[in-house]
Amino acid sequence: MKVNGIPTRSIWSTDNGQAVVIIDQTQLPYRFETKEFRTWQEVKEAIERMQVRGSSLLGIAGAWAMVLAMKDVQDDEGIHRVRSALIATRPIVAELQWGVDQVVKHVLPLAEHERFVAGVKFVERLTQANVIANRAIGEYGAQIIAQIYAQTRKPVNILTHGDPGWLGTVDYGSALSPVYIAFEKGIPLHVWVDETRPRNQGLLTSWELSEVGVPHTLICDNAGGLLMQQRAVDLVLVGAARVTKVGDIAAKVGTYLKALAAYDTDVPFYAVASTGGIDWTMSDGLHEIEIEQRDCDELRYVKGLNAEAEPVRIQLLGENVSVENPAFDITPARLITGLITERGVCSAQNIAQIYS
Amino acid sequence: MKVNGIPTRSIWSTDNGQAVVIIDQTQLPYRFETKEFRTWQEVKEAIERMQVRGSSLLGIAGAWAMVLAMKDVQDDEGIHRVRSALIATRPIVAELQWGVDQVVKHVLPLAEHERFVAGVKFVERLTQANVIANRAIGEYGAQIIAQIYAQTRKPVNILTHGDPGWLGTVDYGSALSPVYIAFEKGIPLHVWVDETRPRNQGLLTSWELSEVGVPHTLICDNAGGLLMQQRAVDLVLVGAARVTKVGDIAAKVGTYLKALAAYDTDVPFYAVASTGGIDWTMSDGLHEIEIEQRDCDELRYVKGLNAEAEPVRIQLLGENVSVENPAFDITPARLITGLITERGVCSAQNIAQIYS
Repeated sequence: MKVNGIPTRSIWSTDNGQAVVIIDQTQLPYRFETKEFRTWQEVKEAIERMQVRGSSLLGIAGAWAMVLAMKDVQDDEGIHRVRSALIATRPIVAELQWGVDQVVKHVLPLAEHERFVAGVKFVERLTQANVIANRAIGEYGAQIIAQIYAQTRKPVNILTHGDPGWLGTVDYGSALSPVYIAFEKGIPLHVWVDETRPRNQGLLTSWELSEVGVPHTLICDNAGGLLMQQRAVDLVLVGAARVTKVGDIAAKVGTYLKALAAYDTDVPFYAVASTGGIDWTMSDGLHEIEIEQRDCDELRYVKGLNAEAEPVRIQLLGENVSVENPAFDITPARLITGLITERGVCSAQNIAQIYS
Repeated sequence: MKVNGIPTRSIWSTDNGQAVVIIDQTQLPYRFETKEFRTWQEVKEAIERMQVRGSSLLGIAGAWAMVLAMKDVQDDEGIHRVRSALIATRPIVAELQWGVDQVVKHVLPLAEHERFVAGVKFVERLTQANVIANRAIGEYGAQIIAQIYAQTRKPVNILTHGDPGWLGTVDYGSALSPVYIAFEKGIPLHVWVDETRPRNQGLLTSWELSEVGVPHTLICDNAGGLLMQQRAVDLVLVGAARVTKVGDIAAKVGTYLKALAAYDTDVPFYAVASTGGIDWTMSDGLHEIEIEQRDCDELRYVKGLNAEAEPVRIQLLGENVSVENPAFDITPARLITGLITERGVCSAQNIAQIYS
């Protein structure tokens, strides 16, 4: 997608795969900065600091980290050690494990001295496949938006939560890909952007949409229920960090609340995931998925611009106030109208069908 | 309740009713400051700026403003003019209208020169009645907490949204009154405090609870659904700005989402209102209650402490980003386990019964 009018991806390799470049998402929307990493440990730290984020992008970032490691570590044991360390950074994100494992599976049959070069080629293809998959998700999802527009002949109001935009993928986005494709096709639409506390990812979504010119309005996370009650939402689109084989999803905390409101008000609610996000080993989201607890400073402090338009951090809460900060919740399949993957659209409960 | 160990109310009269003093709630939790007002216009502005807030307190603040007006305006027409101006500040808040009208009804039968002095006496009684009503709400609600404790023998986890604490009443609080009374009685409990974007009223709740020593944890508004899924919530207690005669409530935006989650997870959900908050003319909350839209700067800017521990405001969002900021939503009676009023506890749908 475009930044200042220039087509840009969220990750790319450089120097024949000796390094990767990412957009530092902790600086946005206030500063657009890229960072170049030459070691897997740097990528790992960037994942931990959420400079790189988004399920789909984490799959690719993890794959690149695995390849960078192979500049120094080519033996099976070493590769498995790096693999474990990378996956442990964000265990809830199924695509991170998937991306890392794709590389491991690809290189293990090869001779040690061939692994790095083969890995680079493989992850270049994986990166390109990510773009193609997200574009396919966008095409399938845009059909849903087009159908709503065909019925209402009014701009389609889409509510999102989190930042399921292109920044969280290599390109196009997960839940926002249908929005971008529909917008490209000229379907009138408007996006309600949830602020998405505590990390305010909605500000990233708003920045993305602004760069492309998609009409949107930022709202606090509390407002979406009312908007659905008032019929101001035609469609909810969210991303998912992990999908179980029965169609439950782990997604950005608060997604469950929006799914409940959509269900209660008969608004279609679609979750977006690519193949790597589906965990075929899990059948009960609520009891099997371990919820990621994040740093309480995400609630204690908030970042914005001071009077001189410089990014600064201020303190909302004293250190003496107890805080809890779970980053995901579980939306059961029964509340999900459908799942959009790069293979098509299916009911969440029948996810196995389009993969059979 | 106590501030720095000293029993304090959120509003009181001084100088024989020639002035009222309030706690400036826009300065909390960072600064405890009181303001003295000698004119009704000053009180009106304080309501508009939300220096004074909370349904129950607004009833009393409105009543005091009406009395202060009668220092200068004693004729019927003038009184009606002031009445309309006061009610127009926060039309969704039923108790504001109720409090103002109580004074008007009391003084209109009197001679003009008697009105101010009679008004002062009357509102002193109204203020005291507010404390007694909230204490009664607390006693009734504490029984619910006690019953849960009797069953579980574990600290009762109560989730709140907004700031339904004593700051929003003259004393004791609305939805927090049961918490304070149960805590007084020694029932082990813990409060999950919703941050309550965009005004972050949860910080006020946390400040209140800290002053009294009630165990609590601040969470973002998105987290409550997960906590209910995980059985970490035993009871949800919220305030209401307006209750219809069929038991629908208009409450702090996001309340509806918590009600849906409570209903979906079988967690008891109680709304608290006193008699003045019930609107017997309304039967359909969703279509009859006009939702208050507040200043979008509430989302664009946020207040906290800078590195020197001084309160400052920083900008989250550029002026070019479109924002919408509805302040309330509607929770239908079907999602409400019960209403707690100063007359007792009843099912929301049968609210008329305890008033018959």
